[in-house]
Amino acid sequence: MKFRVLAATAFGLSLALGATAQAQEPISLRAMGSFHVGGKLVELSGRPVTEVVFSPGGVPAKVDPNGTYQTGQMYVQYFLPQNEKGSVPLLLWHGGGMTGVNYESTPDGRQGWLEFFLRKGWSVYNSDAVERGRSSWAMYPDVIPGQPVFLTTANPFERFRIGDGVNSYNADPAKRKYLPGNQFPPDGYDNFVKQIVPRWTSTDDMIIDAYLAEVDKVCPCVIMFHSQAGQFGFKVAQARPDKVKALVAIEPAGIGDPTKAAALKDIPVLMVFGDFIDQDSRWPTIRKNATDFGDKITAAGGSVEVVNLPAVGIKGNSHMMMMDKNNLEVSQLIQTWLEKKKLTK
Amino acid sequence: MKFRVLAATAFGLSLALGATAQAQEPISLRAMGSFHVGGKLVELSGRPVTEVVFSPGGVPAKVDPNGTYQTGQMYVQYFLPQNEKGSVPLLLWHGGGMTGVNYESTPDGRQGWLEFFLRKGWSVYNSDAVERGRSSWAMYPDVIPGQPVFLTTANPFERFRIGDGVNSYNADPAKRKYLPGNQFPPDGYDNFVKQIVPRWTSTDDMIIDAYLAEVDKVCPCVIMFHSQAGQFGFKVAQARPDKVKALVAIEPAGIGDPTKAAALKDIPVLMVFGDFIDQDSRWPTIRKNATDFGDKITAAGGSVEVVNLPAVGIKGNSHMMMMDKNNLEVSQLIQTWLEKKKLTK
Repeated sequence: MKFRVLAATAFGLSLALGATAQAQEPISLRAMGSFHVGGKLVELSGRPVTEVVFSPGGVPAKVDPNGTYQTGQMYVQYFLPQNEKGSVPLLLWHGGGMTGVNYESTPDGRQGWLEFFLRKGWSVYNSDAVERGRSSWAMYPDVIPGQPVFLTTANPFERFRIGDGVNSYNADPAKRKYLPGNQFPPDGYDNFVKQIVPRWTSTDDMIIDAYLAEVDKVCPCVIMFHSQAGQFGFKVAQARPDKVKALVAIEPAGIGDPTKAAALKDIPVLMVFGDFIDQDSRWPTIRKNATDFGDKITAAGGSVEVVNLPAVGIKGNSHMMMMDKNNLEVSQLIQTWLEKKKLTK
Repeated sequence: MKFRVLAATAFGLSLALGATAQAQEPISLRAMGSFHVGGKLVELSGRPVTEVVFSPGGVPAKVDPNGTYQTGQMYVQYFLPQNEKGSVPLLLWHGGGMTGVNYESTPDGRQGWLEFFLRKGWSVYNSDAVERGRSSWAMYPDVIPGQPVFLTTANPFERFRIGDGVNSYNADPAKRKYLPGNQFPPDGYDNFVKQIVPRWTSTDDMIIDAYLAEVDKVCPCVIMFHSQAGQFGFKVAQARPDKVKALVAIEPAGIGDPTKAAALKDIPVLMVFGDFIDQDSRWPTIRKNATDFGDKITAAGGSVEVVNLPAVGIKGNSHMMMMDKNNLEVSQLIQTWLEKKKLTK
């Protein structure tokens, strides 16, 4: 595949200064709030009443599991700027084992991408995928099929290209072995693991249904999506091509339906990948799957730009680039691309 | 006990007009963001690797449950107004089976209390209690002791003084039997149940530890707390009396340590109760427990005001008064009390 890189010079030298100066300005909102979309009701009946000891040492209580339960809904929080400069809203979709908190303040307390794009004048909709965070979860396997996956504190360190491979994590921060030049904030890792949530691997269809419900409520829009949400972003756009004005895929770990790549031909796509990929055991394949899918979109007449950050001089980014030390340099790159695509007023 | 009611005339006639006019003004923030506080690491070792079928019909995958897990952390989101008028920040703590979403937009899409108090100039910190929402949850009973409790869609309708008792709920909204004059928005109930999250009954100490961590980070402050958080609000204030400048207890379903009521003698307390309590099977006792505790604080030299909303002419409120149709009338009552206590600039 051919890499279509954006020139490093497109992202001004004044970025750091601009971000700092801008952070002093108040944020002016015409509205803010939240809602849930989607979901369905599941009826449980004929189940035995059981005795459960809720508190250690406590008296067993009878629990009747029969009744109607809500499942599959999705939480969305929105912030609408007074001085809107995005031509459509911007939807933020996080990756697996995570929630929309990824896009809020960084785990070491700096400005996150949600605030960055809000300050740039975008109406921002940030959500928690189905069965995660404020979207809630339900009894399993009765209501949600299958079992949840729990991540250890070591798992993202070794898997998200922060630490230098297997056994690079240590409970003692001083003994952790970082990839050389890594931009993930060392002071933030122990806070970052507090963002981890359990996730299922059986809920992709429920998640897509909820994202479709969000798109039907909020869009036309730009969708920015990360990692596991790769398949969600591309598939939802394939199902609603008229409602999606651009896709920003941050290290997508999944793709859309390759046989329907043409559905995306009128939607500009930006894919962004961080550093340390070539030396990783998994990421060269994950990236190739994504860029091959991008090539199919291009072959169908679409417009796909792939940015490998090191190739444009932005070095050291982990898989969690929205919270890396240079996170605002990456978001400015995305902002510049969105402006170039005439998606700002 | 003696009811110390606020006069209805204390809450201006211009409320409805004021709220409407105010909703047109932009919200100006000097900062916004989120963080996690508290929590601990739990080590699992020596557990067998098991085979789990993650996707229906899928190939069993080996799952190694051994490792270090994060638990007990709490998510806090904050909004700091440009023109601050609260003398200290305002912390919002939700009730059982819920998250901080309770205080955001109402389930029928109106302004919630978070925005109301932010517009009044308070720095607002809204959180999800430990093991709920964006605070995440962990393996049980290995990491979190005990079992989670799941609520049916009918449960809050019948228990939160919305419906007229047992069997008042029906999946068909047209067939639901509301308490006469109830202020809960009928159009919002099916959205409201999407806010329900599982909860444990074994985690009170973990929750208190996390709230203490929040107070130590953010306060001095005013704490507003609802329902299950009754015990959390009073106990945390008893543990940090110098850091809490006022307590607003919204239908507290639990209390502090009665033997340490004197610890609260310098902290003004407002308790607010809704309608339909006298006819309820549980709420007269729950209220009496709270007001008896209030009497102990008063006897120790403290200041406790109890407002039964119907007694001051505000009728029809459910247990979820922050989302009732007249929710801004109730929040204005609280705002007026806070102003009277000289907690605003």
